[in-house]
Amino acid sequence: MDKKGILIVVSGFSGSGKGTIMKELLSRYPDTYALSISATTRSPREGEVDGREYFFVSKDEFEKMIAKGELIEYAKYVENYYGTPRDYVEKKLDEGRDVILEIEIQGALNVKKMFPDTLLLFVTPPSADELKKRLVGRGTETMDVIRSRMERACEEADGMENYDYLIINDDLDRCVKEMHSIIQGEHRRSSRNCGFMKEIKEDLERMKH
Amino acid sequence: MDKKGILIVVSGFSGSGKGTIMKELLSRYPDTYALSISATTRSPREGEVDGREYFFVSKDEFEKMIAKGELIEYAKYVENYYGTPRDYVEKKLDEGRDVILEIEIQGALNVKKMFPDTLLLFVTPPSADELKKRLVGRGTETMDVIRSRMERACEEADGMENYDYLIINDDLDRCVKEMHSIIQGEHRRSSRNCGFMKEIKEDLERMKH
Repeated sequence: MDKKGILIVVSGFSGSGKGTIMKELLSRYPDTYALSISATTRSPREGEVDGREYFFVSKDEFEKMIAKGELIEYAKYVENYYGTPRDYVEKKLDEGRDVILEIEIQGALNVKKMFPDTLLLFVTPPSADELKKRLVGRGTETMDVIRSRMERACEEADGMENYDYLIINDDLDRCVKEMHSIIQGEHRRSSRNCGFMKEIKEDLERMKH
Repeated sequence: MDKKGILIVVSGFSGSGKGTIMKELLSRYPDTYALSISATTRSPREGEVDGREYFFVSKDEFEKMIAKGELIEYAKYVENYYGTPRDYVEKKLDEGRDVILEIEIQGALNVKKMFPDTLLLFVTPPSADELKKRLVGRGTETMDVIRSRMERACEEADGMENYDYLIINDDLDRCVKEMHSIIQGEHRRSSRNCGFMKEIKEDLERMKH
């Protein structure tokens, strides 16, 4: 089979627990997956290490990376840039690792445009009722907070159809196993195994003569 | 999540062992899968039961089924008709079973045309070398037999790209697990969960007011 890694984007509803799932997935299968490391212009916080949490760069360096096309996607939040360096991702993919990007819908669609083979996963609670519960909280939130969460969830829901799979987060253990199994199943897609199919065909043709 | 079963077509190289895989899959997960039962005009052999191995029908009845559109696909081999009755398949899908059809490429493409959600699986040995070994056999075959197998394998290989997944048959146990996991992963495809996504969206919209 073809050995190249798969580029995976994970998005999901706020509070869907995708961070926890990712952490667990990486700790269970450290040789299979690599988490993409973002570049950012914000200052490192205490305990953060350059090249582990983020690649810390200056605003000038970041804008040069944009100009040279060295970022797969980037965005600006509160005066700071965040982006995904292409080099690191491609190196890991070539090593056969499946590389995970945790970004939001707009970034996800940009990545998919640049790398059409990207696998898009969307993490969601098991039902609309469960999502409601998480949005409303324990009755200690103000109506403003709930309303703003709801607005955001509506926007997130609008993008769902663009994702390849829905990952149902009911139970962490089951959910991590399922995500792993979906990604590994994707390695068997015929469209990801053109090399394998070509080899079999050429060998068969050669044998006929 | 949406509960409807998935229609699955399994094809593969001759001698790829797909019959054995299917039998094992059905015996391990009898509540998950149903094997489609073909209608045929050939006479029952000893021990064959109507409605178990096949639905045995007359030539006249079969041609009426064709005319009425009651078959998903059909073909004629050596003066006998074989076809897949739509009724049985749809009943099982509605019950939430994943229904498996074991047919060849032309039938597979016809089924996909009529049911675009059909999942197409192609069973193959793990490498071109392994396929070669199976084609050439143990050195006891005539050149004519080998040549005809090779011709057939070439035709089969030509259709491979049309399938969604390649199922690598190296070890029976691993292969059955993998096929099960690929099919179950497919249930999480967003395109197969339009009802679930619609429900979440409508609930969120309703809550905003």
